[in-house]
Amino acid sequence: MASAMLKVAAGVSRCFTLLRGVSTTTPLCQGVPGAVWKLGKLNHIAIAVPDMERATALYRDVLGATVSDKVPLPEHGVYTVFVELGNTKLELLHPLGDKSPISGFLQKNKSGGMHHICIEVDDIKAAVADMKAKNIRTLSAEPRIGAHGKPVMFLHPKDCDGVLVELEEA
Amino acid sequence: MASAMLKVAAGVSRCFTLLRGVSTTTPLCQGVPGAVWKLGKLNHIAIAVPDMERATALYRDVLGATVSDKVPLPEHGVYTVFVELGNTKLELLHPLGDKSPISGFLQKNKSGGMHHICIEVDDIKAAVADMKAKNIRTLSAEPRIGAHGKPVMFLHPKDCDGVLVELEEA
Repeated sequence: MASAMLKVAAGVSRCFTLLRGVSTTTPLCQGVPGAVWKLGKLNHIAIAVPDMERATALYRDVLGATVSDKVPLPEHGVYTVFVELGNTKLELLHPLGDKSPISGFLQKNKSGGMHHICIEVDDIKAAVADMKAKNIRTLSAEPRIGAHGKPVMFLHPKDCDGVLVELEEA
Repeated sequence: MASAMLKVAAGVSRCFTLLRGVSTTTPLCQGVPGAVWKLGKLNHIAIAVPDMERATALYRDVLGATVSDKVPLPEHGVYTVFVELGNTKLELLHPLGDKSPISGFLQKNKSGGMHHICIEVDDIKAAVADMKAKNIRTLSAEPRIGAHGKPVMFLHPKDCDGVLVELEEA
């Protein structure tokens, strides 16, 4: 059923293309009810860090930001600390376990670095179908439940100017 | 005079350390009037891109964001396009001229990538003095006028978990 939905969405990709450039709630392409999705705000910037305590101290003690406690997310293979910046947040990530998805990144970037950005969307399924129709590769076939308990999809960095972009349904 | 100011600021670094962790407008450390600075919101994420037209099309036509015109900033060696995300913005950067500060980055990162993050501060001189007192290296001795016409300072990535952090006086 999901596959059928994607095929339908792919078939109306030209309609999406027209719709994305204008600000309207009225579909310009008839016959595709509920197919329009909207990009939202920046949810967070994820930063992979080799030393969580040192990174937390930088943002809390040196830069004076409010930071969260360190939270283990074993199902995602990371520890997280959130840094509040008023309008958005930084998400500090450190590997948890042997199969952490950020271990490879830290092996290549010993000092740490910006890992991905997360932008909110109002309808992840419609957004993903639209991405596929526009030849933007995704890192999984279907959205998955992300670290915040909401459905997310990662877009391929090669199709996004070298940036790993996470779309999260807000 | 600037040097003297820095020495004074360095001498009261322990006071800053105490102050940064609390939310107050009343200095806890007496005798240092006007020495407190505050971290503000995320101003932008800068993304270096090898093809500005393709990058602009991704955010405007595929993701549906509002984007600015391409603006040449010859004094900074970059073209810029701003992508509005509601709560903050992306700053797409492409080299302008032979001595662009992002040419080296793009040679190492052919597909492009996240170049730096910019966080606002209310007092760049106080912030920079505080950074130096806390052994966070800066990329220049004094703040410079940035791409937005405001004084900025870049912090060394090696002292910021591999992230190039720009502080901008807002």
